[in-house]
Amino acid sequence: MSSLSQHKEVLRVPEPTLRRLPWYLSNVKLLKQKGERYVSSTQISKEINIDASQIAKDLSYVNITGRTRVGYEIDTLIAVLEDFLGFTNLHKAFLFGVGSLGGALLGDSGLKHFGLEIVAAFDVKPELVGTTLNGIPIFHSDEFEAKMRDYRVNIGVLTVPIEIAQQITDYMVAGGIRAVWNFTPFRIRVPEDIVVQNTSLYAHLAVMFNRLNFNEIK
Amino acid sequence: MSSLSQHKEVLRVPEPTLRRLPWYLSNVKLLKQKGERYVSSTQISKEINIDASQIAKDLSYVNITGRTRVGYEIDTLIAVLEDFLGFTNLHKAFLFGVGSLGGALLGDSGLKHFGLEIVAAFDVKPELVGTTLNGIPIFHSDEFEAKMRDYRVNIGVLTVPIEIAQQITDYMVAGGIRAVWNFTPFRIRVPEDIVVQNTSLYAHLAVMFNRLNFNEIK
Repeated sequence: MSSLSQHKEVLRVPEPTLRRLPWYLSNVKLLKQKGERYVSSTQISKEINIDASQIAKDLSYVNITGRTRVGYEIDTLIAVLEDFLGFTNLHKAFLFGVGSLGGALLGDSGLKHFGLEIVAAFDVKPELVGTTLNGIPIFHSDEFEAKMRDYRVNIGVLTVPIEIAQQITDYMVAGGIRAVWNFTPFRIRVPEDIVVQNTSLYAHLAVMFNRLNFNEIK
Repeated sequence: MSSLSQHKEVLRVPEPTLRRLPWYLSNVKLLKQKGERYVSSTQISKEINIDASQIAKDLSYVNITGRTRVGYEIDTLIAVLEDFLGFTNLHKAFLFGVGSLGGALLGDSGLKHFGLEIVAAFDVKPELVGTTLNGIPIFHSDEFEAKMRDYRVNIGVLTVPIEIAQQITDYMVAGGIRAVWNFTPFRIRVPEDIVVQNTSLYAHLAVMFNRLNFNEIK
């Protein structure tokens, strides 16, 4: 990796850009399957209905340059985007709370293709502790600190009941977790240098239901 | 339900508000568990670190009024919020694509508590068609239109490979689906009156990885 791309990687990329880049990636992957070798931002723009200038601006964060008239080489663009988005590096994670959603996430092997490998899970239920799910071991929550020494993990996936969401977050952070992927509908608080990514399926449902009602009644 | 609350429900509530309301709901549920009977926006504000004026503004979309000094009655606030967010009505949905993530969502019974009931799934894989997962029947995709007549469904959950994301979306919409919950990293296109809710776990991962790298290197 060149020093330039290393420099690029530490940029704090705007969240809207980071959310759009995977769209370009999936679109370009599709073009590759269709046998295309080059793509321009104008072409992507037509496919996904986002301004070409916005696409060019978003791609300017990524270490790739297109060629006049032909555009970006598709193979390179895919490789560079996947690397930039962190999908090529496996980031190890622990999951806390093997309930319905937690169990579902353990079963989703697809996360691995996007750079996340859940290497172990924690719970307190006697019927779960000591078992595995989709090959992933489930330990008692008390074993977390010991397991932090065994695995190289800095991401914690939070799928516990809301009553203990803050307490488990504090426990994770005290044990050395640097980023919390929060699936609970609870707003957790963390020290400033800890990353929180909120993915509340329930909040998304609320937005969808409201838009649906609005469309049906208007 | 009063005509006033019916009127309120058709308001197109801003998305940031709809994303924050579930935070207030989970926080207030916790206070109820602790034995509290009343809560003020100032109290919620302290707990979750959002401006009290913002909370009061968000709650103004909901059909509830607090009392001076004592604030909102907790039981009422919970009931009104759950109703407003659509969590008390079961919205029936079909799921398309029983892969790793689709299977995981079928296994997540928690969605039901937030108003979404996946009543059937569709796929083309012979080993899946005719089976059930977590009690949910899996039909061949060709049976979708027939099943639309059997069930009262207007939401489609999209968990297919990106190669067919647009095609299956078009198929759903032609069959009468009014809202698509899109879990693929593909930007689907729909007619103006169809709701799309994008929940790309992969885009969220990209944001988390970037923030994590940024924090570690700065």
